[in-house]
Amino acid sequence: MNTVIPKIRMGFVGGGEGSFIAQAHHQAAGLDGRFELVCGAFSRDAQNNLRTGNRLGLPQSRCYSTWQLMLEAERALPAEQRMELLVIVTPNHLHAPVASEALAAGFHVFSEKPAALSLAELQDLRTRLNNSAGLYGLAHTYLGYPMVWQARDMVRNGVIGNVRKVLVEYPQGWLSQDVAGQGNRQAEWRGQPALSGAGGCIADIGTHAFSLAEFVADQTITHLCANLGVHVEGRQLDDDAAMLFKTAQGASGVLIASQVCAGEENPLSIRVYGDKGGLEWRQEQPNSLIHRSLEQPMRTLRSGTGQPWLCAAATQRMRLPAGHPEGYLEAMANLYGDFATAIRTGGAKNTAPGVPGIEVGLRGMAFIETAIASHHSDAKWTPLECNV
Amino acid sequence: MNTVIPKIRMGFVGGGEGSFIAQAHHQAAGLDGRFELVCGAFSRDAQNNLRTGNRLGLPQSRCYSTWQLMLEAERALPAEQRMELLVIVTPNHLHAPVASEALAAGFHVFSEKPAALSLAELQDLRTRLNNSAGLYGLAHTYLGYPMVWQARDMVRNGVIGNVRKVLVEYPQGWLSQDVAGQGNRQAEWRGQPALSGAGGCIADIGTHAFSLAEFVADQTITHLCANLGVHVEGRQLDDDAAMLFKTAQGASGVLIASQVCAGEENPLSIRVYGDKGGLEWRQEQPNSLIHRSLEQPMRTLRSGTGQPWLCAAATQRMRLPAGHPEGYLEAMANLYGDFATAIRTGGAKNTAPGVPGIEVGLRGMAFIETAIASHHSDAKWTPLECNV
Amino acid sequence: MNTVIPKIRMGFVGGGEGSFIAQAHHQAAGLDGRFELVCGAFSRDAQNNLRTGNRLGLPQSRCYSTWQLMLEAERALPAEQRMELLVIVTPNHLHAPVASEALAAGFHVFSEKPAALSLAELQDLRTRLNNSAGLYGLAHTYLGYPMVWQARDMVRNGVIGNVRKVLVEYPQGWLSQDVAGQGNRQAEWRGQPALSGAGGCIADIGTHAFSLAEFVADQTITHLCANLGVHVEGRQLDDDAAMLFKTAQGASGVLIASQVCAGEENPLSIRVYGDKGGLEWRQEQPNSLIHRSLEQPMRTLRSGTGQPWLCAAATQRMRLPAGHPEGYLEAMANLYGDFATAIRTGGAKNTAPGVPGIEVGLRGMAFIETAIASHHSDAKWTPLECNV
Amino acid sequence: MNTVIPKIRMGFVGGGEGSFIAQAHHQAAGLDGRFELVCGAFSRDAQNNLRTGNRLGLPQSRCYSTWQLMLEAERALPAEQRMELLVIVTPNHLHAPVASEALAAGFHVFSEKPAALSLAELQDLRTRLNNSAGLYGLAHTYLGYPMVWQARDMVRNGVIGNVRKVLVEYPQGWLSQDVAGQGNRQAEWRGQPALSGAGGCIADIGTHAFSLAEFVADQTITHLCANLGVHVEGRQLDDDAAMLFKTAQGASGVLIASQVCAGEENPLSIRVYGDKGGLEWRQEQPNSLIHRSLEQPMRTLRSGTGQPWLCAAATQRMRLPAGHPEGYLEAMANLYGDFATAIRTGGAKNTAPGVPGIEVGLRGMAFIETAIASHHSDAKWTPLECNV
Repeated sequence: MNTVIPKIRMGFVGGGEGSFIAQAHHQAAGLDGRFELVCGAFSRDAQNNLRTGNRLGLPQSRCYSTWQLMLEAERALPAEQRMELLVIVTPNHLHAPVASEALAAGFHVFSEKPAALSLAELQDLRTRLNNSAGLYGLAHTYLGYPMVWQARDMVRNGVIGNVRKVLVEYPQGWLSQDVAGQGNRQAEWRGQPALSGAGGCIADIGTHAFSLAEFVADQTITHLCANLGVHVEGRQLDDDAAMLFKTAQGASGVLIASQVCAGEENPLSIRVYGDKGGLEWRQEQPNSLIHRSLEQPMRTLRSGTGQPWLCAAATQRMRLPAGHPEGYLEAMANLYGDFATAIRTGGAKNTAPGVPGIEVGLRGMAFIETAIASHHSDAKWTPLECNV
Repeated sequence: MNTVIPKIRMGFVGGGEGSFIAQAHHQAAGLDGRFELVCGAFSRDAQNNLRTGNRLGLPQSRCYSTWQLMLEAERALPAEQRMELLVIVTPNHLHAPVASEALAAGFHVFSEKPAALSLAELQDLRTRLNNSAGLYGLAHTYLGYPMVWQARDMVRNGVIGNVRKVLVEYPQGWLSQDVAGQGNRQAEWRGQPALSGAGGCIADIGTHAFSLAEFVADQTITHLCANLGVHVEGRQLDDDAAMLFKTAQGASGVLIASQVCAGEENPLSIRVYGDKGGLEWRQEQPNSLIHRSLEQPMRTLRSGTGQPWLCAAATQRMRLPAGHPEGYLEAMANLYGDFATAIRTGGAKNTAPGVPGIEVGLRGMAFIETAIASHHSDAKWTPLECNV
Repeated sequence: MNTVIPKIRMGFVGGGEGSFIAQAHHQAAGLDGRFELVCGAFSRDAQNNLRTGNRLGLPQSRCYSTWQLMLEAERALPAEQRMELLVIVTPNHLHAPVASEALAAGFHVFSEKPAALSLAELQDLRTRLNNSAGLYGLAHTYLGYPMVWQARDMVRNGVIGNVRKVLVEYPQGWLSQDVAGQGNRQAEWRGQPALSGAGGCIADIGTHAFSLAEFVADQTITHLCANLGVHVEGRQLDDDAAMLFKTAQGASGVLIASQVCAGEENPLSIRVYGDKGGLEWRQEQPNSLIHRSLEQPMRTLRSGTGQPWLCAAATQRMRLPAGHPEGYLEAMANLYGDFATAIRTGGAKNTAPGVPGIEVGLRGMAFIETAIASHHSDAKWTPLECNV
Repeated sequence: MNTVIPKIRMGFVGGGEGSFIAQAHHQAAGLDGRFELVCGAFSRDAQNNLRTGNRLGLPQSRCYSTWQLMLEAERALPAEQRMELLVIVTPNHLHAPVASEALAAGFHVFSEKPAALSLAELQDLRTRLNNSAGLYGLAHTYLGYPMVWQARDMVRNGVIGNVRKVLVEYPQGWLSQDVAGQGNRQAEWRGQPALSGAGGCIADIGTHAFSLAEFVADQTITHLCANLGVHVEGRQLDDDAAMLFKTAQGASGVLIASQVCAGEENPLSIRVYGDKGGLEWRQEQPNSLIHRSLEQPMRTLRSGTGQPWLCAAATQRMRLPAGHPEGYLEAMANLYGDFATAIRTGGAKNTAPGVPGIEVGLRGMAFIETAIASHHSDAKWTPLECNV
């Protein structure tokens, strides 16, 4: 009891000015007070890099001009000063290369998704991970929401019976027009295959829907029938996807992901139906979970500490009593919290329990590639093959 | 002004005790006071037939033991007593035969959907209809909702721009278990191909979703990629359907119809997105229409007389000021109202303006057959061919 | 079984062109097919009167120029033709006089609320009613909603424990501006004390809130502390009311009624809390009833036939399965249905069971007068005295 | 640009194990990375104090056994190590004494509300504050929500016209039963007048409703008519309050605050109506603001960066794009952020702009005392006198 648990020393690659997701990571990591930012390579633009580091309270000496230099320099520092965890918030094409090098250099890695640009690249990363002592996590933030864990728990405990149907959707509207051409930097790099990968919408948000579906419904998707679309002239990558799917456990479902549903914000949602009832969760109202049943009126389970009908996995991801809304940053902070625990107490098999790991990344990447293949295929069903 | 407009004399085929939909028809027809029930052949069970007629205020003389006798006897009555409109609320297999004979006998017909058991049977009915002087309408009740007309008007007026995406779904839960085997009569006949047709869920509610999509989005669906399911042992017809689709106008979409979404009631819904915005309508909250836009905050248009921002087609289908909920029966009553107007003022081309006619029936039937064909096909896309 | 139950012959006083509420009565009475309009004195304007009767299918002979003539003439008709039930949908000042004469002439009366212009006038009406053989009902439509009965049943059965708090509100916005001065006829007569009575908003909708509170919470309100307001220059009657109240059973509460909550439609709502839980019902979503509890997650009970967890009183007021919305007209039709049953089977003590009777009228009138007295009083509490 | 802005060094009084609100303060302060915890006097229980400090990463040397010692010791430290801001999260009775001493010792103070146990005590604190160089803020967290600022901005800009009605409510359910007697520590101290002050519910949450009403509606409440209640045997302080009120600007309203609305969580809400429209905000869905209008359909303004129709004051309090929910901790973090800015850039008149200051505290305390006086008075209206 007398030893203060030191904060985890954290460095960032990426996240210069204008990066929404990097700011979210800083806030999420700050929320529970278990992390300390010690270094960064925020931007290839030297001034941006320094300004960002300065704003975040770093001395110039630990604002590195490249991530390679950062890995090298940090590795040379005394253990008690050295960065422990590297957070990767760059455009997609750097995720795997940076992660590989960081793991090889002895650091833990928390990476934005997707884990790589291709399944091949990712399998290589897995090999490196397996040969390292590092822990690896993916920022599938939506898997940090407590009511997502509650839903999964109810499915696993048979509350809705055998799962038959999974309906998951993620309709956004922000790419309805040519925002990349109008200077939106988020849209700009996402529109370039070299930076973003082969998938556009299917990779950016389709993977969220996919991972949520497999996680909550406790199913393994085995076949896809996908139709992708591009709706803005000159856009190179898909901005819209819809697909039918089947699971190994015998369920079927629909996955919708789109960035041209004009006017929509971020309403990721999932519904799972079994032979006894169904569950519904909507990210824009993340503190509610609807449970429908053949045997009783509809119930709305609400997030909040101290409610005996919620499972432990959900409750331990909550900070506040019911009626005090928690949101996106809290969900991401739950991933950080689990990562912190794993770093201090030791994870398992290169994974921080509670944090989506390389397997989620592999399945997500297989999903992207299968969806694209299915789109180009005349066959109805394309198998999704990924043994993780 | 001095001549009272006489009520329309109406007869029923089907609708003996226990028929939910027949009761709804009686109530909807009664709502606006423009119809008078004068005869019926409610049930093949003689006692049920008489009890039903009695309960509905009919003399025994006009409770007929068969629909054939009814057509014959009513035809022989003086014009001012004779039934004018025949309402068909039997199981599906009788829809087309009764309609054909009734039209031939000089009566107008308002039929429950589907219009026939097969496309072939329905094309025959169309020929008969074209050769008759009768008006023909289909009880696609959801097309009677005022905010559905409002949505269609906004789409047609370009409020959301060019339509790109159509998401329509109709998830029910009442066939999650073997209710037919447990004595539910609605489920019983619906489960028999000879009475119901080749489609189960796809015919019963899939057609509602299909017709709503084409109506609101003002699109013609040309290709389907469908996956149907059967989830209860011994059930002969599909209880679940999901499909991707494409339209002649270049949009794509998803249609979900299911009767095994355990715990769901009747949440038919549609979302349509164009390049400027989107619309959302949900049947369980039928008095609201959500309009999202790239250029302004989300708006909720609400049903209710006297609101200048609603279109005429919507307003004339409303009875009450905003905040006084209207529902399913009022929507059906709107179809009856349009039918009454057409009967008294003359319709056009065998159709009552405002009431879904034979073309909606034909497209719906083509939809059913195409969905089933697609389900059995290994090809991704199956064309939906139906020139109406 | 061989005798057809004849429809109830109904006449109207009031309800010429432009009357929203009269049209609602026609529709509600028509919905279940148990009433037949046989006569009317719709308007003092002769042409309006005839036009209205004509539109409603009446012969000129039974469109009477005054209600007095109607009572006299109908009384003289043979019993099997004669009007049985008089529906009063005039401005308020005629409610009691017409009702009194009609009861004296042997007719049943279904009156719009308020039952009279003053408590004194209403007590006189009660005396006449008690001396008659007639049944008397008040169109407190909101008490016809099935989920209102469900809520009352749950309160009575102790589901929420001992009632502590009652929060009832009825905020409308349609009198936010000087609509009477702009030609709105509904607003015009409501603004004249001689036609409307001493209360404006407090009488027009405050009584709805009051009656709903006493009905659902199963409480008797004994003390008021009211603040009324007038917000438009030149308006004579209150357009806004708020008050604290106490009940004989020990609960306390708040009642809000306003017609200057700009932009609001008709969101009458009630919340009742006991020591174990609470109930919430909102008229604009009338098919849902929310049940909160200390011991389980929030439940939403939904209207719809065939749900075993709903009480008989609620279920028998429903026509459709869950998910098929019923609304305002169906609620009013429930009052008509109960009135029809009472007329054919005999009511009790001048009342049709299920239909708000003279007692509800008396308490409502006492409420209006007490609220006005309280508003003008400097004392905090003003007793509401009304033994019915 | 080359100088890193140092984090603000923060100390806590109160917040030992089991304190929900202290944990929320730590998280809120951590969210944006501008604060650093340097010391604390968390609990009078020495072990609890040390454990808490240890968990929070403090060395034993800066875990003080009493707040008096902490003030003294910190004051003696070099300026660059010394605590700058004292956060007070004790039970109510210590708020003012600790704040007074801290201000006198040269520290800034951020205090949980209420600011004191009585108006007299608080006026004394104000004098001390005015004589100090410190900044003083109150954790009225709900005033940190961005859509609350948006609502206020719209009111001030006349979007809803002249304000007529203000309806504010805060119904909780957690004191429905004798939870203090069952070991709930939050309930325990709140139930003791010596620790909590003269008001129970009225102080604990009534002040939130009061401050929100004055803030959003931009009104000064001048008269109250209150009814308080106690619903659990042996409870000393009110657990329920309802009141009518009037404002200096001519509006009227209703305030409801209760802790015995069994089953309710934390649905603080406010509705403000002017002569042109109305606004509605609900804390449990804090990212939405409903705008009703006489001239257009209902609009729902949604929180999220980058929306040109939101005001600057709202947007600068948001971190994420629309559809990424922010909640209670983010609202509190907004207060911390404004406090940080004021500390680093200089506040004004002992206040951090954007953070509720001593004036909000004074009006809140006057509200509590006036509500209690009104409850005990037979007069309808009790003036709320507080010139700040």
